[in-house]
Amino acid sequence: MAKEIKMENIVSLAKMRGFVYPGSEIYGGLSNTWDYGPLGVELKNNIKKAWWKKFIQESKYNVGVDAAILMNPSVWVASGHVGGFSDPLIDCKECKSRFRADNLVEDYFLNEKNEEVVGLDGYTSEELRNIIEEENISCPKCGKHNFTDIRKFNLMFKTFQGVTEDSTSELYLRPETAQGIFVNFKNVQRTSRKKIPFGIGQIGKSFRNEITPGNFIFRTREFEQMELEFFCKPGEDLEWFNYWRTYCKNFLLNLGIKEERLRMRDHGEEELSFYSVATTDIEYLYPFGWGELWGIADRTDYDLKQHIEGSGIDFTYTDPQTNEKYIPYCVEPSVGVDRMFLMFLCNAYEEEELEDGTTRNVLHLHPALAPYKAAVLPLTKKLSDKSDEVYELLSKEFNVDTDVSGSIGKRYRRQDEAGTPFCITVDFDTLEDNSVTIRDRDTMKQDRIKIDELIDYINERTMF
Amino acid sequence: MAKEIKMENIVSLAKMRGFVYPGSEIYGGLSNTWDYGPLGVELKNNIKKAWWKKFIQESKYNVGVDAAILMNPSVWVASGHVGGFSDPLIDCKECKSRFRADNLVEDYFLNEKNEEVVGLDGYTSEELRNIIEEENISCPKCGKHNFTDIRKFNLMFKTFQGVTEDSTSELYLRPETAQGIFVNFKNVQRTSRKKIPFGIGQIGKSFRNEITPGNFIFRTREFEQMELEFFCKPGEDLEWFNYWRTYCKNFLLNLGIKEERLRMRDHGEEELSFYSVATTDIEYLYPFGWGELWGIADRTDYDLKQHIEGSGIDFTYTDPQTNEKYIPYCVEPSVGVDRMFLMFLCNAYEEEELEDGTTRNVLHLHPALAPYKAAVLPLTKKLSDKSDEVYELLSKEFNVDTDVSGSIGKRYRRQDEAGTPFCITVDFDTLEDNSVTIRDRDTMKQDRIKIDELIDYINERTMF
Repeated sequence: MAKEIKMENIVSLAKMRGFVYPGSEIYGGLSNTWDYGPLGVELKNNIKKAWWKKFIQESKYNVGVDAAILMNPSVWVASGHVGGFSDPLIDCKECKSRFRADNLVEDYFLNEKNEEVVGLDGYTSEELRNIIEEENISCPKCGKHNFTDIRKFNLMFKTFQGVTEDSTSELYLRPETAQGIFVNFKNVQRTSRKKIPFGIGQIGKSFRNEITPGNFIFRTREFEQMELEFFCKPGEDLEWFNYWRTYCKNFLLNLGIKEERLRMRDHGEEELSFYSVATTDIEYLYPFGWGELWGIADRTDYDLKQHIEGSGIDFTYTDPQTNEKYIPYCVEPSVGVDRMFLMFLCNAYEEEELEDGTTRNVLHLHPALAPYKAAVLPLTKKLSDKSDEVYELLSKEFNVDTDVSGSIGKRYRRQDEAGTPFCITVDFDTLEDNSVTIRDRDTMKQDRIKIDELIDYINERTMF
Repeated sequence: MAKEIKMENIVSLAKMRGFVYPGSEIYGGLSNTWDYGPLGVELKNNIKKAWWKKFIQESKYNVGVDAAILMNPSVWVASGHVGGFSDPLIDCKECKSRFRADNLVEDYFLNEKNEEVVGLDGYTSEELRNIIEEENISCPKCGKHNFTDIRKFNLMFKTFQGVTEDSTSELYLRPETAQGIFVNFKNVQRTSRKKIPFGIGQIGKSFRNEITPGNFIFRTREFEQMELEFFCKPGEDLEWFNYWRTYCKNFLLNLGIKEERLRMRDHGEEELSFYSVATTDIEYLYPFGWGELWGIADRTDYDLKQHIEGSGIDFTYTDPQTNEKYIPYCVEPSVGVDRMFLMFLCNAYEEEELEDGTTRNVLHLHPALAPYKAAVLPLTKKLSDKSDEVYELLSKEFNVDTDVSGSIGKRYRRQDEAGTPFCITVDFDTLEDNSVTIRDRDTMKQDRIKIDELIDYINERTMF
């Protein structure tokens, strides 16, 4: 039997067990920044490794890059971010509260009319303003209806390079990793000698000056992305769009995400970006409701064309077989590492009521994602030498923990809560038979196996 | 026989083979930013993995964290960066050229007197100004001696969070990852239940608004660090300092760095930071000369004390055995990923003159660092199916390449230049005996082995 999980449970587990701490906590924090602790960094790295393995290493189509966060500002002019990457802000003239106009409308329909409105991203300021007037939407803080005009607030963080703070030295922190791929299209194609279709993937930090960050690590100003830009022949794009849409979903299911908590939300006409012919959001049912996890978009040749125009460099691809020339189309599956991290935590966490009436908190993480693959537990401190030997053997292969304090039962519980799939107990028999007891996190069943079979045993069961 | 390697060779190899491209190249670049290409990102990730394995995974003392780049500005007041993290700038009044005053002095002594001066970091502006006057140092550009006063330029990148650009919303991009560790000292200690001595490691991006970035990826404004902060009992710090000093050196030697290109430069009295009792720079002989790679510093209790004072939070540690209370001392080995990347490239690259009079360009990278562990090469295109089978088998375990075009000899050469330790040729016999020819990058010797022994064969030889 499992209880319903609330966000507070997740945030508290994350903090207490060293997955995620509030950022700069000893200085009162910094609005919705978060630091990953010893367990968190391992889980996060394992998520990134799993993505890299499936999207780069095992894919014969794809290669990776790692572009700089600081890019020439012309990149963001060409990409459309300088002109269009902004939130519509509106202030209540009465109580001075500030809102995102699209959120104001969204919340109004949800709360007052029980209607879920999507696609407000695409609305102009005027359209949003009109809805607010027509519906006579009032300020959620003070209840009055007296708003300013909507103004656009660009979401890119600005900084300055060099000694002077004038506009010539102004830079942006990248709001997405994708552009680091597009501008390198030709470099990568030339040096990797890839032929269309092929993809370029990247993992890295991005920054967006969100007005309303929140929901723990779901929406933060600093976040990490895993993006793939997959280049194909025009006309074959929808086929590839479906390929990657399915690939992404299977990635999640194979890592143990519950299918009933996933939905594939295809964008309708009115929601699609003007350059996109198909977009699907993979959404997960977080404790706070459905949230966007993974966006898969057929972006046509929009991005490459923008950069051809912006830079004057020709990105035309010549098919080596047919000599046909075209600007490749691009399918982009883009996902946030932090959102995926939160999803895996929520998906894995269970407060399990046992038959004896007690509760055990357990993280049923896929073993490939678990921070520790195993914990080595000497039955008593007298067995520490033997236990250290096992620990050292395993730590060459896996990230493993060791714990000597408290009863074995208590130590099992600690590892359950950390998501450790295997607990290895070194007892007095071990000194004689070189065998250990290995206990499974999920079934709580125990096996007795030889120490020199441990690595294979764990390897087989933690593979992805 | 190996030729002397110049920086141009390295930069050109890096670009041509997809290790490192100039950042934002299609827009004319952005002063000394660089993007890692398909081979580069793999080498860089392998360097980070090797560090994480040896410094976190295999160490029973250490755990990792991943803190946010954006921190509460009070962190940088307490750490001393707001007050003191600056370069001394000086302008030539005649030709308006701008210099770092310490570099001006350094270069003068090197070029005019053939003397290597170290420790100028610690000099005050007044002291530097005095040397410039006493030595009558002239402007390297115009030859005149007519300088402005020295002024301090803070190296932290500034940005603004939220809608307004006033000082209340001012943030810095972190200039080092270390502070993300110090502020979390208590969180990590509590949640990981570690006892002193223990360490906290972190890999992540840092930013410094350097006046004179340069030497390819050696000094860039955006860079990645691998830092360990190792906390120990006061009095035991020098012992641990020596432990980590040796550990770092062995890490490099075990990854194949030539000992004659390394030196351990201990800081003398005059060069030591005021809070440090011992510091060693591990330097590598780059093609442009000796350059700092790894700084190992005994920082005493300076950092924790600064944060106790800044935040009012008590970081006193109580020894669970003796109940003794103290502020832990800290030993910090800090290294830049990009510098290490450059070192490994320089160390591995060879233009080898063969007996037949031809030259082969080869990267003798440690197999654990090599971007591709193996390349699967079908002898002819007719063998592609069998070859793909081998590729798929191996790609589940390793990052592997495959290449069908050109003669086998030509394909070997390409892989040599990419540092691939093993080339696997699928020939017509393979269809009969399920064996392949495996060729070693360094010895160029060939072995014939069964396909189902390949994984073990490569695993054994690429381990670190």
